[in-house]
Amino acid sequence: MRFLHTADWHIGKKLHGFDLVEEQQDAYEQIKKIAVDEQVDAVVIAGDLYDRSVPNETSVNQLGNMLVDLNLKHHFPLLAISGNHDSAPRLRTGSSWFKATDFYLNTKLSQALTPVEFPDTQFFLLPYFEPFEARQYFKDDKIRTVQAAMVKIVAAMRAQFDPAKKHVLVAHFFAAGSSHVDSETQVMVGGLNAIPVDDLADFDYVALGHLHGKDALHADRVRYSGSPLKFSVSEANQQKGVWIVDTDPFKLTFKPLKPLRDVRVLTGAFEDLTSPEFYKKQAVNDYLSIQLTDQRVIPNVMQALRDVYPNVIELERVGGPVATGDELATIDPHLDPMELMDQFFEQTTDAPLTDQQQKWAQTALQLANKED
Amino acid sequence: MRFLHTADWHIGKKLHGFDLVEEQQDAYEQIKKIAVDEQVDAVVIAGDLYDRSVPNETSVNQLGNMLVDLNLKHHFPLLAISGNHDSAPRLRTGSSWFKATDFYLNTKLSQALTPVEFPDTQFFLLPYFEPFEARQYFKDDKIRTVQAAMVKIVAAMRAQFDPAKKHVLVAHFFAAGSSHVDSETQVMVGGLNAIPVDDLADFDYVALGHLHGKDALHADRVRYSGSPLKFSVSEANQQKGVWIVDTDPFKLTFKPLKPLRDVRVLTGAFEDLTSPEFYKKQAVNDYLSIQLTDQRVIPNVMQALRDVYPNVIELERVGGPVATGDELATIDPHLDPMELMDQFFEQTTDAPLTDQQQKWAQTALQLANKED
Repeated sequence: MRFLHTADWHIGKKLHGFDLVEEQQDAYEQIKKIAVDEQVDAVVIAGDLYDRSVPNETSVNQLGNMLVDLNLKHHFPLLAISGNHDSAPRLRTGSSWFKATDFYLNTKLSQALTPVEFPDTQFFLLPYFEPFEARQYFKDDKIRTVQAAMVKIVAAMRAQFDPAKKHVLVAHFFAAGSSHVDSETQVMVGGLNAIPVDDLADFDYVALGHLHGKDALHADRVRYSGSPLKFSVSEANQQKGVWIVDTDPFKLTFKPLKPLRDVRVLTGAFEDLTSPEFYKKQAVNDYLSIQLTDQRVIPNVMQALRDVYPNVIELERVGGPVATGDELATIDPHLDPMELMDQFFEQTTDAPLTDQQQKWAQTALQLANKED
Repeated sequence: MRFLHTADWHIGKKLHGFDLVEEQQDAYEQIKKIAVDEQVDAVVIAGDLYDRSVPNETSVNQLGNMLVDLNLKHHFPLLAISGNHDSAPRLRTGSSWFKATDFYLNTKLSQALTPVEFPDTQFFLLPYFEPFEARQYFKDDKIRTVQAAMVKIVAAMRAQFDPAKKHVLVAHFFAAGSSHVDSETQVMVGGLNAIPVDDLADFDYVALGHLHGKDALHADRVRYSGSPLKFSVSEANQQKGVWIVDTDPFKLTFKPLKPLRDVRVLTGAFEDLTSPEFYKKQAVNDYLSIQLTDQRVIPNVMQALRDVYPNVIELERVGGPVATGDELATIDPHLDPMELMDQFFEQTTDAPLTDQQQKWAQTALQLANKED
């Protein structure tokens, strides 16, 4: 059989305060088109459907409509699990009715041990879980880590294996040895709450969610799909997309998604970035982390950049320290307050105080002196 | 056909801080038993399934399990609408799948105009709505009130009437001329956001939700079912229950519900209420509004009452003003602070300060004097 593997939709997530409703909808439409074009037999969503345990009404509507569209309109079987960002009780609302149309949404550890059966493949849908849930389920107080729990869970799944079929695990956790980006630091994931890839060797494929980059882990048959959208500047260099998985013979194909508005880093001098010759060749509506190489003070710099690039999400100086300190040092501290203000204003705005502004400043200073 | 009419479950509601999870479950089990015993063809829930637009996870689980039980386990068709306490987008999660098992959950005005068809009856399920929704739906800016909207809505419903069938409206609003209790004041509901009963004359029955007492309105075929539980002391004298409605020939039967813990008013003197001869004959776990007839100061009165009645939700003095003021007036204000404290302590606790307490008090007074 053939299925589509996606994860980490994080419906409702904001990017530095910007709403991503349109981007989410656009990415969804691309995913659906891939599912249709590739004639997949099922769509797997490996957790974190929502960004928050209590999504707002817009998010509830948006995800709800996507699931109705995929399952009820396009008749794709859906295989989904709750992730650490989802509230399991909220996400499972209505799920008892979903099975009738082959929509399997697992939110409890216990559900993972009964496979969803396709003619040639068994799917084990393991939601995100905490060690205490495994302790309760297996009545084993010695289970203190996700890793210890997984040994028991995999053994219980193996007991359900139909040898005539392929076996796919859908899960939401850290795989040991995977890496994720957090700003510019690559973090290697290890320790007792990460699952060694070797422990998953019994499965023909493991469809993971949790990390947002498809290259977070380098294993042939244990894969993160990554998120459909870039959710932070640290993901700017990731190619987002979904996997198309053929189970027999096994074949894995990555299908890229094209962002409606990309998340990019733009580096340069203020003069260059704001000159029409440059920005007319830019997708100015992208979400931009702007790295300015200038060292000088630039008045109202954020507003000036946003006049050209409305969706600036981050502004950093990468040309060394801004020269504010040095310039201020040239101001004689023995000047009277009015003269000091005059000089400071001119340095930061490149214009002297107007007569009206001088009057306001003088009145304010007089009031301040009186209060002494 | 025969159906059960209930409403205003308010799952998640608290009574003066007390959780009602057990009471809700108990009332639900009684409602289900009535539906089974009476062999009803459908269960109507006329809005306010939840108490809050964002119910907590316990409430989501509880209502979810009730609906699964009624519809998927006991195979009752369900006819439900959102009320003013429900978030329509949240409540409708999954509802596109529900229809397959005859569970109709309407949360949009537009859905109300397509009847749910039974062999001999048409149900029009009208969710709670605001005038602006009717303005948008009918593209008529003159609709400023619920009453004006209802004239249009009823006309549109009438256009769908099958003359061979009976016609039932399920709705959640104020019916003009109905009354509701708020503490001891009976409030008559009228005005432009109340619906005149005469405007509903085309229906064979109108199953209403919104008001919590079945006797809020006196009309033969327009009825509030009331809530399954008493949700405030002002509802203490209401008999809670559900209606069993036969459509042809028309017949209405009230089926009372027995509260797990009742909400009651208990009036008497402290001595009497806390004497074993009295309270041993009481259901001491009921939620009680205690109306004390005493006028004297009673030390730690709430704790003393809760030792006997753990679920006191309200304490009022109905014997006239408590005599604190008068008694304090007998204390000579010219006494020194230590003597004043001594007298006050004895008056309120009926015991003098012990030696140890006297020492503590003196130390505290000395410290206070030092700080002067």
